Amino acid sequence: MEGGLTLSALEQLNQRLVAYIDLSHVQSLLNWDLQVYMPTEGAEERGEQSATIRRLAHEVLLSDETARLLEEAKSQTAGLDADSDEAAMIRVIDRAYTKERNVPADWVSRFSRVTSLAYDTWVKAKSRSDFALFRPHLEEVVRLRQEYASFFKPYEHGYDPLLDDFEPGMKTAEVQAIFRSIRPAQVALIQAIGQAQPVDDACLHQAFDPAAQREFSLELSQRLGFDFSRGRLDISPHPFTTSFGQGDVRITTHFAPAYLGMSLFSTIHETGHALYDQGIPLAYRRTMLADGASMAIHESQSRLYENLVGRSRPFWTYFYPRLQQRFPTQLAGVPLETFYRAINQVKPSLIRIEADEATYNLHIMLRLELEIALIEGSLAVKDLPEAWNDQMQANLGLTPPDDAQGVLQDVHWSSGDIGYFATYALGNLVAAQLWEKINADLPDLAQQFERGEFGALLEWLRQHVHRFGARYLPKTLIQRATGTSIDPAPYLRYLNEKYGEIYRL
Amino acid sequence: MEGGLTLSALEQLNQRLVAYIDLSHVQSLLNWDLQVYMPTEGAEERGEQSATIRRLAHEVLLSDETARLLEEAKSQTAGLDADSDEAAMIRVIDRAYTKERNVPADWVSRFSRVTSLAYDTWVKAKSRSDFALFRPHLEEVVRLRQEYASFFKPYEHGYDPLLDDFEPGMKTAEVQAIFRSIRPAQVALIQAIGQAQPVDDACLHQAFDPAAQREFSLELSQRLGFDFSRGRLDISPHPFTTSFGQGDVRITTHFAPAYLGMSLFSTIHETGHALYDQGIPLAYRRTMLADGASMAIHESQSRLYENLVGRSRPFWTYFYPRLQQRFPTQLAGVPLETFYRAINQVKPSLIRIEADEATYNLHIMLRLELEIALIEGSLAVKDLPEAWNDQMQANLGLTPPDDAQGVLQDVHWSSGDIGYFATYALGNLVAAQLWEKINADLPDLAQQFERGEFGALLEWLRQHVHRFGARYLPKTLIQRATGTSIDPAPYLRYLNEKYGEIYRL
Repeated sequence: MEGGLTLSALEQLNQRLVAYIDLSHVQSLLNWDLQVYMPTEGAEERGEQSATIRRLAHEVLLSDETARLLEEAKSQTAGLDADSDEAAMIRVIDRAYTKERNVPADWVSRFSRVTSLAYDTWVKAKSRSDFALFRPHLEEVVRLRQEYASFFKPYEHGYDPLLDDFEPGMKTAEVQAIFRSIRPAQVALIQAIGQAQPVDDACLHQAFDPAAQREFSLELSQRLGFDFSRGRLDISPHPFTTSFGQGDVRITTHFAPAYLGMSLFSTIHETGHALYDQGIPLAYRRTMLADGASMAIHESQSRLYENLVGRSRPFWTYFYPRLQQRFPTQLAGVPLETFYRAINQVKPSLIRIEADEATYNLHIMLRLELEIALIEGSLAVKDLPEAWNDQMQANLGLTPPDDAQGVLQDVHWSSGDIGYFATYALGNLVAAQLWEKINADLPDLAQQFERGEFGALLEWLRQHVHRFGARYLPKTLIQRATGTSIDPAPYLRYLNEKYGEIYRL
Repeated sequence: MEGGLTLSALEQLNQRLVAYIDLSHVQSLLNWDLQVYMPTEGAEERGEQSATIRRLAHEVLLSDETARLLEEAKSQTAGLDADSDEAAMIRVIDRAYTKERNVPADWVSRFSRVTSLAYDTWVKAKSRSDFALFRPHLEEVVRLRQEYASFFKPYEHGYDPLLDDFEPGMKTAEVQAIFRSIRPAQVALIQAIGQAQPVDDACLHQAFDPAAQREFSLELSQRLGFDFSRGRLDISPHPFTTSFGQGDVRITTHFAPAYLGMSLFSTIHETGHALYDQGIPLAYRRTMLADGASMAIHESQSRLYENLVGRSRPFWTYFYPRLQQRFPTQLAGVPLETFYRAINQVKPSLIRIEADEATYNLHIMLRLELEIALIEGSLAVKDLPEAWNDQMQANLGLTPPDDAQGVLQDVHWSSGDIGYFATYALGNLVAAQLWEKINADLPDLAQQFERGEFGALLEWLRQHVHRFGARYLPKTLIQRATGTSIDPAPYLRYLNEKYGEIYRL
C-alpha cells in the first residue's frame, strides 16, 4: 500500500473482499478440475457446486456493508492521485460492484439457463452442421445480451457494455477504427503470400510421442521462466491458464500425436499467460488488484511469447537442437531453416483456432463485425450464415463448405461470451507494440535468445507490465509501457517484415 | 424420501442445507488437490481458501433460519418412526447443528492456529526424534480437546464427546470393554506366531515398475466394482478416499518401487471405502444422509476388502496369474502359496501403518488407552513416551529405539484428531462380523472370487450397508446387517483360523 494515509474504509473493504477473492479462486479450481481431471459423471454436482460458490460470492460482494464501505472509501480518497494503488483499488472494486449490482438476479439465472441449453444444442448442431437447430438458441442469447447492455445505459453504443466486460474502458468505436485501419494491409499481405512459393510444413506432421512432447513442453516452459514451485502443467482438450493465487498458477496444453505444432505453441502461449499471473506482486495478494489489466493485455503476453518470441529464429537457434535430440528420427535430417519456415507457414484456412499469425486477425474482424451487427439489430440471426460466408470470402478468399466449418465453429456465442473476440486481436497489436519497445531497450535480445537466455525479457515485462496487476486501465498501461496509445503500426511492420522475408515478397 | 407426508419444514431445511453440502464437497476438492497436485507454494493461499469455505459453511449451518426450521421440522415429525428417512435426516442435521453451535468460534480459531503450528513442529520433531520439541504443542492440543469436551457436558466420560465426533453414539466405556475383551486373545496369538516357523515375504521386496503397478491397481479396482465414470485413481504420499458427490468419488494410492505390498493393499483398501461412497443411493443426493454411517463403518468396508477379501486365497487364485503376467521376471517362479503366505506375514513391528492384520489392533489399543488417560488427566504429556514404550513391550514385545519410531510416529495428535484411532480397530471387528454373515448368505463366495466374480459381494454390501448412507446410527446398522450388536468374536475366530493354518499353530 502506498501513500501512508490511514484509509480505514478501504482497508475494511479489502478485508471484507478477501472472501470474494478466495471464492473466485475456488471457482477457478472447480473449473480447472472439471476440464482436467473430473470424471464424466461428476458434471451435474460440479455445476451445482459452482452455482453455490457463485451465489455466495455475489452475496459477499453485494452486501449493504460493501456499499457503505465503498462510498466511505471513495470520499476518504477523493483527493488522491488517480494512479495510486488506493485509487486503483477503489476503481476496480467499484467496477466489480457496479456490474454485479446492475444486473438483476433474475437475468443471471435466465442467462445461465439459456446458455447452458444453447451450449448443449451448439455441440449437437456443430456435429451435424445444422445451423437451424442452433438458431433459436442464439436468438435468445443475443436478446439476453442486448438486455444486459440495457442495464448499463446510457452508453455510446449498445455493444460498449459487452466489450467493457472483457476490456475495461474500451469503446466499440475505438476498436472498429483500429480494425478498419489494419484490414486493407492484412488482406493485401495475405494476397501477396497467396501468390508466392508455398512453405512446406510436412516436418511438423509426423508421429511424435506424447510423453516426449510433454518433456519438451516442461523444458520450454521452465526455460522461459515459469516457476514450477508455484504452478503446474497438465493436459486438457482446450489449453488454458488459471490461477488460484500467486503461489499456484496452472497451465494446460494438448499433445497431438501426429502434429508437433499443437503442443509447442499451446505451451508457449499458456506460459506467456502464466508468467503474467506469476509476476503480479505479492503486495497485491488477496486484493482486487491481483489480476491482469484486461483480456487484451493478458493476450498480449501470451501472443508475445507464442509468436514474437516462440516463432522467431533466435528462439529456435537455441531450442531446435534440443528438439532434434528429443526427436532424432523425425527431425535430425530437417535443417533449422526448414523448421523455422514450417512453423511460420501462412495459409488462409476456415478455422480460427488453426489460423496462422498472419491470417488470425482477419478471423477476429469478421466475428467482431457480425457481433456488433447482431447486437445493434442490423443483422438478424437467420442471416448470419450468409453474412459469415460473404466475409470469409472477402477477408480470406474462402467459402466454408458447411456451417460446422463456418458460423458454428466457435463455442463463444453459445456460452454467451459476445464481446470477447476483439481482445484476441487487440492482444496481437499490443504484443507488437511492446516488442518494438523491448527490442529498443534490449538491443541484444536476439543474441540472448540464441544462448537460451530469456531472463532479461521476463524482467522487462515484469517491470513494465506484470508488476502493476490490475492497477492501471489497459490504455494507461500501454501508454506507460510503450509511450503511445494503442497503435496497429508496429504489428503491421512486424508482419510485413517477417513474412516479406519468409515469402520473399 | 419415504412416508408421503408433506414435511415442508424439513424440505425447506434440506433446500437450505444443499449449500452446506456443496461447501463441504468443495472443501474436499481443495483438500484432494492439496494432497495430489498442488504446487508447494500454493499452500498458504489454499489454507486461506479452506478457512473461508469453512467460515461460510459455518454461517449457512448456524443461521437463525436453520434453527427455526430445525425446531419446526422436529415438531412436525415428532410421531414418525425413528428409522424413517425423515427422522434420520433430522437426527443427522440436529447432530451437525448442535456440534457447530456448541463450539465457540474463538475455540475453532485457536484450535486451528495451535494444530497448524503443532503439525509443523511434529514434522520437525519426528525427523529429529525430539519429543521435547513437540511436547508443549501436544500439551496445548490436549488442553484444547479437553476444553472441547467441556462444551458437550454433561457426559459419562470426558473422552465421549471426542469419540462421538468420529463414531456417533459410541461411548468410551463400550469401546474400552470391547478392547479389554480381545486383548488377551490377540496377545496370545502373536506370541504363538512368534514361536512358529517365520513366513518369508522376500517375493514382495523386489523392484516393481510403478507404471506397471498402476496398471494393476486400476485392474484391481475396476474388477472389484469401482466405477471409473464416477471416480478416479491418483497418487499421493498417504493414500485416501474422498468424495465430491455420488458422481465423483476419488481414491489415491502410493507406489513403492521396491515393495509391491504398498500399492496392492492401499488400492484395495481405498477401493473398499470408495465402493461405499459410490453405493450411497441417488435419492440421498445433496442431503445430509449422503454420507457413511461413521468412520468405523467406513473402515469396516475398506478393511473387509483389504484383508478378508484381498488377503484371501480365493482372491489371489484369480488375480495372482494376472499379477505374474504383469511381473514375470519377479513372480513367474513364485508359487501362489508362497505369495499368499508372504502377504499374510505376521511380524510384530514398531510402526502402525506397516502393521499386519494380526498385530494392527494392538497398535490401536495402545493409542486408545493413552489418549483416554491424557484426556482424563491421569497421564501427563511429559510421561507419554515412557507409557508408550511400556505398552509396546506389553502388547508386542518390542521397545522403540527412539521416539520417531515410537510416540512421534502418527500425525493424528498433532492435527488434533484425538478420538479417531478407535475407529480403525472397530472397523476390523465390524468387517469380520459382516464377513461371517456374507459367507452364510453366499455360500459359494470363495468359488466366485476364484472366477474373478465380485459382484455378489458388492450387491450384498449395497443391500445391507451402502444403500442406507447415514440413515442409521452405526449400532443400528450393525444390528440390522448382522443380527447382533458389535461383537469381537467373529474377528477373533477369523484371526485364529486363518493364522492357525498359515503358521500351523
